[in-house]
Amino acid sequence: MLIAEPLQKAIEELTKLPSIGRKTAQRLALYLLKSDAKYFNDLIASLVSLKENIKFCKQCYNLAVEDYCDICKSEKRDKSLICVVEDISDVIAIERTNEYNGLYHVLGGVLSPLEGISVENLKISELFDRLKNNDVKEVVLALNPDTEGEATSLYLAKMIKHLKIKVSRIARGIPVGGDLEFSDIATIGRAVLNRIEL
Amino acid sequence: MLIAEPLQKAIEELTKLPSIGRKTAQRLALYLLKSDAKYFNDLIASLVSLKENIKFCKQCYNLAVEDYCDICKSEKRDKSLICVVEDISDVIAIERTNEYNGLYHVLGGVLSPLEGISVENLKISELFDRLKNNDVKEVVLALNPDTEGEATSLYLAKMIKHLKIKVSRIARGIPVGGDLEFSDIATIGRAVLNRIEL
Repeated sequence: MLIAEPLQKAIEELTKLPSIGRKTAQRLALYLLKSDAKYFNDLIASLVSLKENIKFCKQCYNLAVEDYCDICKSEKRDKSLICVVEDISDVIAIERTNEYNGLYHVLGGVLSPLEGISVENLKISELFDRLKNNDVKEVVLALNPDTEGEATSLYLAKMIKHLKIKVSRIARGIPVGGDLEFSDIATIGRAVLNRIEL
Repeated sequence: MLIAEPLQKAIEELTKLPSIGRKTAQRLALYLLKSDAKYFNDLIASLVSLKENIKFCKQCYNLAVEDYCDICKSEKRDKSLICVVEDISDVIAIERTNEYNGLYHVLGGVLSPLEGISVENLKISELFDRLKNNDVKEVVLALNPDTEGEATSLYLAKMIKHLKIKVSRIARGIPVGGDLEFSDIATIGRAVLNRIEL
């Protein structure tokens, strides 16, 4: 009786979304309630279309509207270069830079014994199938520099080297616009070790 | 080509929501994309039901599933007491306290000449119709203590007094659990002025 039932239900469902707490969920629900019908219908249609029309690329597991994603289908990309990332959001982040022209491989996570994520839960055998059946010259590992990411990188690097394929890792260092004084020791240490001759 | 079109569209629509920036919108869209169909359908159904089934109470402009809201329809509420609030979220906030047993009147905003919100844009004439046609003994003004809220409170108090109805305002003071040392001068000043005899 405190909150009308349909509002209560909508708040509950919205609270299940990541980074949406109860207060934000209530604000969103009240906003949607008061929003004009056009915006509301556009929003719902866009979400339903997202769910219905987006699939995962059969080669790299990036998002795709057909069997293969735009990147895998593109004639302009360097097919001898594969960048291994944890998640689709990493593909988006790297694509935004306009600095990378190869293909991707989305693992769908990183190895994490504590969370029960092992080789079989990730697209690792699919990666090796690609490496064996295509003329790949280099694999760039772009996993997050946390413990699990580093361990997964080491594992993959070892396995890929067996195939006589070059393996690299994206550079670690002081972020562009970052401040040496406020960087942590590990980052400064890596930046010194990986210094580049000018 | 950077982001598949349906994802791009969903992110754009989500970004229009309050307190959702581009990064959060992307996170939400990717989450929905990967979520199981049951949760996705529940969420969409709850939002559509919210939009379709919730109306505004014909008396107090609170949320309602029928013509009148649960509070206005309740036999247990004190109908001689009306609490005037800015928005529906304020009704929810006051109801949560379980300290108020009267009815409400949702203005839908406060007077703000700068934003072009005048008496006609708010449910003010509807409030006076209620006051004239019902046996109301007291009006509690519970608008936010900012400049516009205070100005609107003063305006309403003056008009309501003409009808020989008692007007009160919710108390200002140090928040429960708050710290005197860290309260601003205006709040401490109000708290001293509005001290209560023990």
